[in-house]
Amino acid sequence: MKIYDVENFPNPLRVRIALAEKNAIDKVEFVAVDLLNGEHREEAFLAKNPLAGVPVLELDDGTFIAECTAITEYIDTAFDGISLMGVGAKSRAVINMMQKRAESMVLDAVATYFHHATAGLGPELETNQNATWGQAQKDKANAGLIYFNEVLAGSEFVAGNEFSIADITLFAGLVFAGFAQITIPSQLTHLLAWQEKMAKRDSISA
Amino acid sequence: MKIYDVENFPNPLRVRIALAEKNAIDKVEFVAVDLLNGEHREEAFLAKNPLAGVPVLELDDGTFIAECTAITEYIDTAFDGISLMGVGAKSRAVINMMQKRAESMVLDAVATYFHHATAGLGPELETNQNATWGQAQKDKANAGLIYFNEVLAGSEFVAGNEFSIADITLFAGLVFAGFAQITIPSQLTHLLAWQEKMAKRDSISA
Repeated sequence: MKIYDVENFPNPLRVRIALAEKNAIDKVEFVAVDLLNGEHREEAFLAKNPLAGVPVLELDDGTFIAECTAITEYIDTAFDGISLMGVGAKSRAVINMMQKRAESMVLDAVATYFHHATAGLGPELETNQNATWGQAQKDKANAGLIYFNEVLAGSEFVAGNEFSIADITLFAGLVFAGFAQITIPSQLTHLLAWQEKMAKRDSISA
Repeated sequence: MKIYDVENFPNPLRVRIALAEKNAIDKVEFVAVDLLNGEHREEAFLAKNPLAGVPVLELDDGTFIAECTAITEYIDTAFDGISLMGVGAKSRAVINMMQKRAESMVLDAVATYFHHATAGLGPELETNQNATWGQAQKDKANAGLIYFNEVLAGSEFVAGNEFSIADITLFAGLVFAGFAQITIPSQLTHLLAWQEKMAKRDSISA
């Protein structure tokens, strides 16, 4: 299988961590997308993902899977090893919820701030900016950091006592926050300690 | 188990359809949330869901599950019957992707238009509106309707040949579109035929 992505970008990072957690990085051929020159908006890429986002997984039968949660669902079901999406109804539901919160409260909020209220990827790519909306999303992201600090005060991982996709999403959100120059306040000690612990995992530090 | 919701609202509808598909409506005690009077923003409700959204599932052990995808994951795993999230890696991934597209391209876009660029739920609840962003989301929703018409030209259901959570999300998106007075253009014949077929399902028509 192939993954079309941009190394070191936050969403591609999510899928690469998921693969590494499953020891499956070598099962995939990575194909670089020249996103900074707009390749993701050309017809050939839009045929793979009409929403123009990376990463996209291409299965050996030619099926294209976009969206990080969908690609991670594929990886989690197809490969043995640690469970990323959870086992059993309650665990799967809690992980799904916390993953979604990590997206909406941090990663997606930071992304919208970056693309709408900063120079983002530059004027060629950042068309139709809405700075007011972007700034509101920055406020939302900062509130999200406080929320997850509280969660991590009482829990080893984002969705309970086991590592999951929810940790991957929040970690990528903090990477993006750093890139967008949103600083984690030093008083959010639980969040910062968790981030340090995540950075040391083999799937991330390697 | 209990579900805190508002009957006939689009997101609560998603979970009620999922329960009906599993013949599990009678397993749940529904608790009405007085959203129009702001009950969802009071401390007691925020303790159930800090994002103040409905529906919220409360398990018998006191765990609260918010987010429609998470609640549906619980329902799908806990109850027998038709699979809503898919079986096998590829099917689960395609359904996850198409569900997410139905959210981002239609349901969430319509919701943002409704809450930001129309009177929405009224001035008491619609604080910090951004009409420019809302209008852009209406354009996005209209493009989403065209996308799903094309999908349904080649496929019986949103994520392939089987009914899934992706159909539920898109159906709720069209319900919300109607409420927000976004009309489905008559030339989108595949989408309209699918909507008519969905409306006749026992889980929806009952």
